[in-house]
Amino acid sequence: MNGIIKNNMHESISLSKKIGGKIEIKSKKKLTKETLSVLYTPGVAEVSLAVAKDKKLSFDYTIRKNTIAIVSDGSAVLGLGNIGPEGALPVMEGKALLFKELGGVDAYPIVLATQETKEIIQIVKAIAPTFGGINLEDISAPRCFEIEETLKKELDIPVFHDDQHGTAIVVLAGLINALKLVKKNIKNIKIVISGVGAAGVAIAKLLIKYGAEEIILADSRGIIFSERQEGMNPIKKEMAKITNPNNVRGNLKEALKNTDVFIGVSGPNLLDKDDIRKMSRNSIVFAMSNPIPEIMPAEAKKGGAVVIATGRSDFPNQINNVLAFPGIFRGALDMKTKNITDEHKLKAAEVIAGLVKKPNYGKIIPEALDLKVAKAVAEVFKKQK
Amino acid sequence: MNGIIKNNMHESISLSKKIGGKIEIKSKKKLTKETLSVLYTPGVAEVSLAVAKDKKLSFDYTIRKNTIAIVSDGSAVLGLGNIGPEGALPVMEGKALLFKELGGVDAYPIVLATQETKEIIQIVKAIAPTFGGINLEDISAPRCFEIEETLKKELDIPVFHDDQHGTAIVVLAGLINALKLVKKNIKNIKIVISGVGAAGVAIAKLLIKYGAEEIILADSRGIIFSERQEGMNPIKKEMAKITNPNNVRGNLKEALKNTDVFIGVSGPNLLDKDDIRKMSRNSIVFAMSNPIPEIMPAEAKKGGAVVIATGRSDFPNQINNVLAFPGIFRGALDMKTKNITDEHKLKAAEVIAGLVKKPNYGKIIPEALDLKVAKAVAEVFKKQK
Repeated sequence: MNGIIKNNMHESISLSKKIGGKIEIKSKKKLTKETLSVLYTPGVAEVSLAVAKDKKLSFDYTIRKNTIAIVSDGSAVLGLGNIGPEGALPVMEGKALLFKELGGVDAYPIVLATQETKEIIQIVKAIAPTFGGINLEDISAPRCFEIEETLKKELDIPVFHDDQHGTAIVVLAGLINALKLVKKNIKNIKIVISGVGAAGVAIAKLLIKYGAEEIILADSRGIIFSERQEGMNPIKKEMAKITNPNNVRGNLKEALKNTDVFIGVSGPNLLDKDDIRKMSRNSIVFAMSNPIPEIMPAEAKKGGAVVIATGRSDFPNQINNVLAFPGIFRGALDMKTKNITDEHKLKAAEVIAGLVKKPNYGKIIPEALDLKVAKAVAEVFKKQK
Repeated sequence: MNGIIKNNMHESISLSKKIGGKIEIKSKKKLTKETLSVLYTPGVAEVSLAVAKDKKLSFDYTIRKNTIAIVSDGSAVLGLGNIGPEGALPVMEGKALLFKELGGVDAYPIVLATQETKEIIQIVKAIAPTFGGINLEDISAPRCFEIEETLKKELDIPVFHDDQHGTAIVVLAGLINALKLVKKNIKNIKIVISGVGAAGVAIAKLLIKYGAEEIILADSRGIIFSERQEGMNPIKKEMAKITNPNNVRGNLKEALKNTDVFIGVSGPNLLDKDDIRKMSRNSIVFAMSNPIPEIMPAEAKKGGAVVIATGRSDFPNQINNVLAFPGIFRGALDMKTKNITDEHKLKAAEVIAGLVKKPNYGKIIPEALDLKVAKAVAEVFKKQK
């Protein structure tokens, strides 16, 4: 781990000691004897009765108008794994801060002392009347798929698992510009994705929706193919049906042969320059494992990659889902969108890509904190409510 | 309902239309490229690992340090009854605003789409790692008793049902000063409490702890006594054992005969001046049903009451639990108190009473928004951690 990262970590601890949590509650109105009877009893009774009579009014008259929950069970936090709800809380606070600063969205962390799929679904349904949307976060695969799918069906507010769809949107945005640079068409290329968790699955599905026809997924046991028996789960079986059309077998390194794009959402130091050399000419490498990528940018370059992205802010082309989630919920809340669809995600990726006016090898994606991005992404919801 | 209240209600609706919710999330630190890596990845990883390793650190390094949940199922909201979670939300937001403005406590509303006792307990336990304390609110009796009791036992953060204990603390505070004025001793007086829900039960219990020896509870069916069969529940049976030592029977009006104190936490317009006349000389009447008291102050005065309090801000002596809850949680969070005990409650009542330097008939209790109160109540926790 390099010096900059180590420094950030020490600073992070001392800041936490100093300020406690990273977010706080702020009152929108000053409290006086006069406002008390309007903000609270007896005045509030009328608001409560109006909302109780017509629950839809809760999206106009209460915090639901601009508030989402960031729900995590702490089972797959950053690259740290299953560290539990208390350990997850500092990350969720950071995310809440990003939601507010970039999207103007009031996001509140809710970390859960359970990792039971059914119980998580039940709890999120029970607390849903408090919120205008649910952002699921750092919940491990394959449980995350059932949790999101069920909640999307059963709740009347938008539900979005950021580790899946936030990542997928930003990867597609980067890939759109990368492909422009190497003059390749998504329909004619071969893509290898390393990692078949939340991110890998969602990326594969979104790229297919965007037109990709040949994607190979690989996990720690190697390539996913239809007949594979070991280490499969329902989602991997589903993915085996819609990827790997030529039924390629072998390990990740073997998968790379003659492919155009490598997308890593797996773990550190899996590849070296010789692996990249096996790829087609003008290869694209998105090595997004954090903080240590699947292959370091310099090494990938030595292997012949021409467009290289990572998840880190200290290299060019940071694929950071902060480019997606604030705008996604800004738009969904503003337009009272009940369902964030594949169409929204595809459009969001195109909008993010389009914000880089002249893409070049060192710049395929906007800066993480570019304030224009969330605004532009939110517009997607206006166009296709 | 009088004009002032009607005006407040209209203002409340139009304010809600304008601002949506009454509270918002605020970031404690400005977001820049530099702070991003400290507030979020990669720096946050170190904080998460430290907290995951030693969960107690979550009370220093995260929002838990200063944050509680205001949990309601919307089953007993103000005087409005069972209006459900969405209807309850505007009230919980108002409460959150009061927590922040008066106690500096970050309180977040969580309204629940279930009214099952077991499920509420399960959900609050599951979300508890997010919070430094749980304020239960507007949950109907008798479910509220089991919910609070179980959570107090099973959680390692303070749990406080404000409708019970906040009300009881402030009633006792007012009563301490009222008794001084009429020169009566709590040990020698007869007290009638109308209402055997959350507030009535908690008031009776706290007054007994403070030394009261003769309390009669009455619900809509009349006086609670040991042999009564109709309309009893486990808590009413328990209360029958520790109240009404002379086994008095009859209705509320009959209960009042020769008593010194009437405490109403029941419903509007139950009594008139002739009922008050049956009480002992120098009677004390706390008619706290909101917005319409059990008896209006002028009518109680005609009946001979000398100290009169209500729950309303437009009459003297407002018994408002806003005098208790912000300081209770300010103190509990500051001192990392795991359990709010009867000792804390009794001390808090004495402290609140003591803030009125020279009590008189028109002033037995501090003003609802007196900023000194929460500070003084919080001190209680320092003295007897």
